[in-house]
Parts: sequence; C-alpha cells; structure tokens
Amino acid sequence: MKPISLVLMLSLLATAATWRSRSTSAVQENVNAPHYSAEHRLLRPENYREWVYVSSGLGMNYAPVSRGAHAMAPVFTNVFVNPESYRDFIKTGRWPDKTIFALELYSSADRGSILQSGHYQQTFLGLEAEVKDASTPEVWRYYGFGVDRPEAEAFPKAMCFNCHEQNAFVEHSFVQFYPRLLDVAIAHKTLNPGKTVPVSRTR
Amino acid sequence: MKPISLVLMLSLLATAATWRSRSTSAVQENVNAPHYSAEHRLLRPENYREWVYVSSGLGMNYAPVSRGAHAMAPVFTNVFVNPESYRDFIKTGRWPDKTIFALELYSSADRGSILQSGHYQQTFLGLEAEVKDASTPEVWRYYGFGVDRPEAEAFPKAMCFNCHEQNAFVEHSFVQFYPRLLDVAIAHKTLNPGKTVPVSRTR
Repeated sequence: MKPISLVLMLSLLATAATWRSRSTSAVQENVNAPHYSAEHRLLRPENYREWVYVSSGLGMNYAPVSRGAHAMAPVFTNVFVNPESYRDFIKTGRWPDKTIFALELYSSADRGSILQSGHYQQTFLGLEAEVKDASTPEVWRYYGFGVDRPEAEAFPKAMCFNCHEQNAFVEHSFVQFYPRLLDVAIAHKTLNPGKTVPVSRTR
Repeated sequence: MKPISLVLMLSLLATAATWRSRSTSAVQENVNAPHYSAEHRLLRPENYREWVYVSSGLGMNYAPVSRGAHAMAPVFTNVFVNPESYRDFIKTGRWPDKTIFALELYSSADRGSILQSGHYQQTFLGLEAEVKDASTPEVWRYYGFGVDRPEAEAFPKAMCFNCHEQNAFVEHSFVQFYPRLLDVAIAHKTLNPGKTVPVSRTR
C-alpha cells in the first residue's frame, strides 16, 4: 500500500468516527442538563420552549384565594420538561437525575380578535424551574427567574419543596395535573405511596 | 494498491457518505410533512406531542355561546406545530409549505388533589389539524380526527377555511392568540393586511 492511501484511509476512518460520535451522542447525552454559575445558581434554561410540552393550567391555586385575587385575570401556567428526561419517563415512569421542568406564566386575555368567550395567553409574566439533581442535599430544588433574570438561587424549602414532598403524585412532580404523564405513571405503577387517581378521571 | 484495500476504502467512503447524509437530512428535511392515504385523507400525526408547543387557550369560542354551553366545563385547546416549520417561522415570520398544526382538546377539571381554584387538563377529547399544502386547491386545509381516528377527510371550506381566511393574523394561522409567534410576526412585519396588535397587549 502506498503511504498516501494509508493516510487517506486513516483520515476517512477518523472522519467516519467523528460523524458516528456526533450522531450517537445527540441521543444519549442530556444536553439540557442543569447548568450552574460558580455560586451554584441555576442558569436560566434558554431553549425550554423547544422541550417537550407537559400540560397547562389556568388560574391554578393550591391555597384558598382571597376575594381580591379572584377579581384579577387568572394566570396561565405552561409546563415543559427536557426531552431526554421525558423519553426516560415514558420508558420507566420515573424521572432521571438532571431532569428540569420549566414552568412559564402568561397573563390571560378574554377580549381580542374574534374571541366571544374564553381565555387565551397574552403577556409573558415569568419563568420558574424545578430540578432533580442528586448532587444537591434536597435532590429536588425550585427556582424563579422572573421575566428576564439570567440565573436564580434555589428557593427555601418552605416555599415549594415541602408542598411537593407532601402532594406530588410521582416523586416531586405534580403528575396528577399532567394527563399524558399520569397515564404513563399508572401503567408503570410509579405513583407515590398513598396517591390515587381522581375518581372523576374517565380515561 | 491491493484490491482489498481499494474495496475497504470504497466501503469506508460509502459509510461516511451515509453518516453525513443522515446527519444533514435530519436538519433539512421535514420528516413531519403531512402524509396522506391513497384517498387523499390526512393520516393522523402520531408524534405531534413532541413537536414545538405554540400556546393554549381555555373555553375559547368564536361565536356567541348559548347559556347552556356556559354551564359546561370549558375545554382546553393546546396547539403544536412541526419543528421544521417552527424554525422557518422564527427566521421569516411565514409558514413554509407542508406546515402542520396539531390542535388537541382536553376537558378541564376544577377539583382534584390540592387544587383550591382554577383549572387543569384532564381527559383527552380529540385532535384536529391545520395543514398548509400547496398541492391542494385551497392550500390550507382542516381536519378532525376525534379521539382515535387514524385518518381524516378535509372539512368543507365553510367549516374552518372561511373563518381563518378572514380572521387569521398570519396567513391562515391564528397567531393573534400565540404570543411568542405574534412577536416574531411583528418583528418580520408579516401580519396579514388590516390586522393590528390588540391595544391591551403590553409586550
């Protein structure tokens, strides 16, 4: 074999190996894993709108609401999860380490264009995140980025953790409000102990 | 050069070309383009839940609603679009040929778990689709799959097309109800003639 063809062949092998590595790593790695600043603040996940949609609610409150609050327009909440963790959840009914949920808030409008009744989403009000990270003491942490903060400290446990610990249907996630994921958890029998599906749920 | 090394090199070249083709085609091709049966019925898009989320509404009606209908629980609508067309829209503010929107309907629940007020999504009620396809006479067509129909005929023009033709803010899409896409269309100046942003919109 001439030297030139050996070099060419090695070059081809290296190129092929690079292509193969790129195509498989995209499937296996969690490119959307949580990223932190040097001060352990969570960096805002910029591309969450292209993650997998989980579900939405309107005006959801977990505490009794005062009369004044009822007079305000209700807020839409849209939940997304990083696609790598979604695929794992579909297979197992459990959340892998480094799962991130993004919860965004939108104002609701009941007038506009041809709308005669109902509500649609209008103004972005803020972004929150829930992260499963086994390298943190709590494993599950909660963050608020507001409209445009690039990073956030974890909320104190009393603000979100304790309620999720007590009430979430799958680990710390409120799957009871996410019908697609609830079906998956029921099939995999991964509901937290003592949690049962609402009787009003028909499928 | 020995014959064996020539065969090996050609094989490597072919393999490398295949890898390259796979990795680039994933970016360029619309793998989620509409698929039709031999009778020109649209095949149900099975993976729309992994497409890009557009927005949601609750109880949205474009015609005056009778008192009886108001007594029913309002219906959530979630809209998704195929990711290839979404990326084009971000760049241009226009929808490319072969765009598909999936609109799913969910019942709303106002009781369950720790919810004190508001609504979450509970039971899947059906799937509809809006397709831009320049190979059809109308270009924009509308389909209903119900809960589980695998294919659907296009609705008559009086059912959806005419209202979208008159009222949609970008081509045939109701971008006036999708705040993220509305910002994109405003930036690209691609709102349909005569359509203006609601004065109540603050950002």
